[in-house]
Amino acid sequence: MRRGTVVIIGSGNVAGALCRWIPRAGYSVAQVFARNVESGTRLAQAAGCAYESDPSRLAPADIYIISVSDKAVAEVCKTLDFGDSVVVHTSGGCGIDCLSPSAKNRGVIYPLQTFSAGCDLNFREIPLFIEASDEATLARIGELARAMSDSVRECNSEQRCKLHVAAVFACNFVNRLYCTADALMRENGFDFSLLKPLIGETARKAMQSDSPQSLQTGPAARKDWNTIARHLEILKNNPQLTEIYKLLTINIIHGNNG
Amino acid sequence: MRRGTVVIIGSGNVAGALCRWIPRAGYSVAQVFARNVESGTRLAQAAGCAYESDPSRLAPADIYIISVSDKAVAEVCKTLDFGDSVVVHTSGGCGIDCLSPSAKNRGVIYPLQTFSAGCDLNFREIPLFIEASDEATLARIGELARAMSDSVRECNSEQRCKLHVAAVFACNFVNRLYCTADALMRENGFDFSLLKPLIGETARKAMQSDSPQSLQTGPAARKDWNTIARHLEILKNNPQLTEIYKLLTINIIHGNNG
Repeated sequence: MRRGTVVIIGSGNVAGALCRWIPRAGYSVAQVFARNVESGTRLAQAAGCAYESDPSRLAPADIYIISVSDKAVAEVCKTLDFGDSVVVHTSGGCGIDCLSPSAKNRGVIYPLQTFSAGCDLNFREIPLFIEASDEATLARIGELARAMSDSVRECNSEQRCKLHVAAVFACNFVNRLYCTADALMRENGFDFSLLKPLIGETARKAMQSDSPQSLQTGPAARKDWNTIARHLEILKNNPQLTEIYKLLTINIIHGNNG
Repeated sequence: MRRGTVVIIGSGNVAGALCRWIPRAGYSVAQVFARNVESGTRLAQAAGCAYESDPSRLAPADIYIISVSDKAVAEVCKTLDFGDSVVVHTSGGCGIDCLSPSAKNRGVIYPLQTFSAGCDLNFREIPLFIEASDEATLARIGELARAMSDSVRECNSEQRCKLHVAAVFACNFVNRLYCTADALMRENGFDFSLLKPLIGETARKAMQSDSPQSLQTGPAARKDWNTIARHLEILKNNPQLTEIYKLLTINIIHGNNG
């Protein structure tokens, strides 16, 4: 039983993940619509559907999913005629109104996850945050979301923007700290790989905890000023790292996130 | 065949991990020496040896391992008579000379890992960085380290202090970002658990990569100023988070760690 047809618009990593998961959720992918011929064709092949880039040849579908960069959502939307079908985007940073006025029945399915090319994540575990322009649209978006994931919640555009900030801290900024640690290792002639057990264990501990606050260790948590002073001495030739070190140290000491 | 006897000094998480791993490495634990009666006794029971807190009753041993807080290393060392035995500490932040002059044959075994109470990490995968006062001591410390771990490297006190800074970024500061993300989730009425798939995947990607630099995503990496401005608007009532957001964003854009 096919629950409905979906057209995926975009050919990035989220679009790629959706092309793999939507068929498993009992929906059929009618078309991959994307500007980039190469990645669009590859995704369409993987999903067993047609590739298209001409707006006049957009396939009919029950649901259109726009998975393009935040900047491009509104632009893409303007060029396409969705009729009365449901249109969603998957962006954390865009409000639902990026889709108006082109999309009458509009909504959002925001997956709180980071996607890489070719990485086959288990979508059932990915938290999906949904929003819709009206109750009937919400029902249809909810049906699709729950067919893909066991973790579906409603959230409005304002809340989603805050979730997006949370994701920037937990993912983008965390990765930046990995980069900093990597650079410090390399200055010693040591390899990034030597940090991997520590990175893995730090994440594992957080994932087994109800609150990462209780896990905080290190010189700042101990208010070990001697060690902090030695670390700042080591970083003194890098003003940016010195500032980041100071700010995060103060932030740990104050324990203030609110 | 017992390779030698070890006395563990301290009863914290590193001491606890050593009490489990040293017997598996073919050494015997002769005594757990610690100020804290409760945790010291528990560790000694687990290691099947005696507990002691009286400096005059320190057991004879081939190697003494001091696993106490950075601040306490020098202090503890002064109160004990090690004779000609090898004495090491396990601290990233302390130089080898924290152990002098009490310890004639001294060194360091620094595990680049975060330790929790009761957590049975696989020590064979933990990178150990060793240093010693002389070649003969280095040989004996190296033998113990290699009996515990497959990843043993030499590093001097200056390098180790930089490794310690790297660990602060990759572990303590990363955990602080998890806390920040947690707080932002809770402001929305959402649970920390919803961040766990993202935290896990972010760490997993880094652990499968040679360089986290190549994995950097998010608004800063895309120079998506609209999104950055929206995020700063959301954070405007929290000056500390605003500063952290700005600094890490600038740091990602400049790509400057060196």
